[in-house]
Amino acid sequence: MSPAQGEDLTAFMNAPDYQNVPVMLRTLKGEAQPRPPVWFMRQAGRYLPEYRELRSRASDFIAFCLDPEMAAEATLQPMRRFPFDAAIVFADILLIPRALGQAVWFEVGEGPKLGPLPELERLQGEVEASTGRLSAVGETLSRVRAVLEPERALIGFAGAPWTVATYMIEGGSSDRSGARTYAYQHPEALDGLIEVLVEATARYLVMQARAGAQVLKLFESWAENLPEDLFDRLVTRPHAAIVARLREAGVTAPVIGFPRGAGALVEGYAAAAGVDAVALDVSAPAGLGQRLQQRLPIQGALDPLLLRAGGAGLDRRVEQLLEQWGHGPYVFNLGHGILPDTPIAHVEQVLGRVTGWRAG
Amino acid sequence: MSPAQGEDLTAFMNAPDYQNVPVMLRTLKGEAQPRPPVWFMRQAGRYLPEYRELRSRASDFIAFCLDPEMAAEATLQPMRRFPFDAAIVFADILLIPRALGQAVWFEVGEGPKLGPLPELERLQGEVEASTGRLSAVGETLSRVRAVLEPERALIGFAGAPWTVATYMIEGGSSDRSGARTYAYQHPEALDGLIEVLVEATARYLVMQARAGAQVLKLFESWAENLPEDLFDRLVTRPHAAIVARLREAGVTAPVIGFPRGAGALVEGYAAAAGVDAVALDVSAPAGLGQRLQQRLPIQGALDPLLLRAGGAGLDRRVEQLLEQWGHGPYVFNLGHGILPDTPIAHVEQVLGRVTGWRAG
Repeated sequence: MSPAQGEDLTAFMNAPDYQNVPVMLRTLKGEAQPRPPVWFMRQAGRYLPEYRELRSRASDFIAFCLDPEMAAEATLQPMRRFPFDAAIVFADILLIPRALGQAVWFEVGEGPKLGPLPELERLQGEVEASTGRLSAVGETLSRVRAVLEPERALIGFAGAPWTVATYMIEGGSSDRSGARTYAYQHPEALDGLIEVLVEATARYLVMQARAGAQVLKLFESWAENLPEDLFDRLVTRPHAAIVARLREAGVTAPVIGFPRGAGALVEGYAAAAGVDAVALDVSAPAGLGQRLQQRLPIQGALDPLLLRAGGAGLDRRVEQLLEQWGHGPYVFNLGHGILPDTPIAHVEQVLGRVTGWRAG
Repeated sequence: MSPAQGEDLTAFMNAPDYQNVPVMLRTLKGEAQPRPPVWFMRQAGRYLPEYRELRSRASDFIAFCLDPEMAAEATLQPMRRFPFDAAIVFADILLIPRALGQAVWFEVGEGPKLGPLPELERLQGEVEASTGRLSAVGETLSRVRAVLEPERALIGFAGAPWTVATYMIEGGSSDRSGARTYAYQHPEALDGLIEVLVEATARYLVMQARAGAQVLKLFESWAENLPEDLFDRLVTRPHAAIVARLREAGVTAPVIGFPRGAGALVEGYAAAAGVDAVALDVSAPAGLGQRLQQRLPIQGALDPLLLRAGGAGLDRRVEQLLEQWGHGPYVFNLGHGILPDTPIAHVEQVLGRVTGWRAG
């Protein structure tokens, strides 16, 4: 049940400091807003010249992510330019395999590369220590929270277990068919790996919440092409286990689940994954989002290719999204990360439409 | 409305030759079967040694497709080995752009390559002539129908307009983001191209039906990642236009639509695309298929990666599919084409489960 239907929301709204609660958090509590909060996936990134300048100071992408000063600066850059309602900590979903002892590196112009998958026992032995190896991300969050305006929320995140497992199994990016084949050929080994990742991810997110993250997001970037039984086993149940561990640890930050490519499976996911909100991808129908909003807040789902293309079609689609979903609890966002060659003027155009803000 | 709820089905079942109607056609009329008919996408193909031998006799894949003797032999090869309830004509979805005057070729070990997209006026001028350039496919169908047992159905097919357009625009295979960008940047040009393809595809399918195809299938292989408005414009409406043209031409063969990757958009598609049955991909939930079966027959959706992996997990998933969908009108199939390195024994294993047949 969403707090929108329960007394939890009433208590939340009657709290003395309610007026200071960021609009992003109010929305994630199930409250529809006069205008939805807005942020963009990969809003800190290569489409910004100041990001490219900053990034050029570090030779290694992992080192960049794990340098709290540079990562905090990258996190804050889009917040200075744009009226985003939330900042998302600058980090990478592959920091977890690295913290678990698998080699991870980035080659220029290519996707990530990973070394051989360590033995399961080896990974299990690294779970406790992995969180400490990620303390730089906590430090980044603390630094950002210290300077970010109180009305803007701070989001922490992690890659979800199946998505991270696909990289760990395949050694890099691919169409994921290798990982899905592994799921069929080595079900017990994969379940063991997912269990390790559930535990490491839950600990990592607890650490992020304690360091200042007010919202947590699980990026299941590779939920597509999974049959329902695999989806339940590899996506829905691990997400539910992570949320349960967060709650056991006393973390109350709302969790946004983003099963990209889940298609029609997203409805069952929303009902069973234990997340507080669901982020939708570009192909989510209007009616599906409205049905989900009866249960929980949704986020999404402007096509990043349309944002890059711009023009009157972009305005029309933004209006359509606001119209179809803005009457319920809704966070305006893209359906996938912003593309590096997106003109900044197009970002300004959308933010103007959504918030009434004018650049300049 | 499916004929399952109407008097059309009663007339069909009371016809004197009803006992001779292939189980595939009865199912596509909306009738549930004691055991579903079964065929596999790409059942004629590289996983069969006899196919590889046959294919090696033609140097050029296009020439192979357009040689009725070889294409008929390829179509029939799996029918000799396995108890498939339907044959599908051996052809390729890129024969249409070729017939419209765009260069198409296949390089070994790579996907298809296409020459520059011709001007729209040029393409429009080729629509009428294009069907004649595809007459070899009609000849293949006639040859197959002449020797195929009457209880086995013969399927003709075409690539659906958007999917074919993605190849025509991008010049080959890709993640389709170039074609989607084109949709945003050149909406009128794309609409013109889709119109050409609707017309050429409808004529091509009419020709196939007259040559002996009893079922027609529209392969929309790249329906994924389309926002709802683009999906309606580029997928649902063009499919509906093709079906309408078929009916105007007096073609009564049932049409199966396969919008692969449509996710939750498949429900709206089933309601508006005018197709007689919907083929589902691997990620279709059980409940979605059951809802669709209230309206029309469904087909799908075993994961080709699981078919290749084999084992007890394969048996379990086949049983699950039969259980969840076998009570309504259902055609057993894969959710995507069979992979070239699939062991033949796994195909036999599945066919044994579905039909009770034993290899040997």
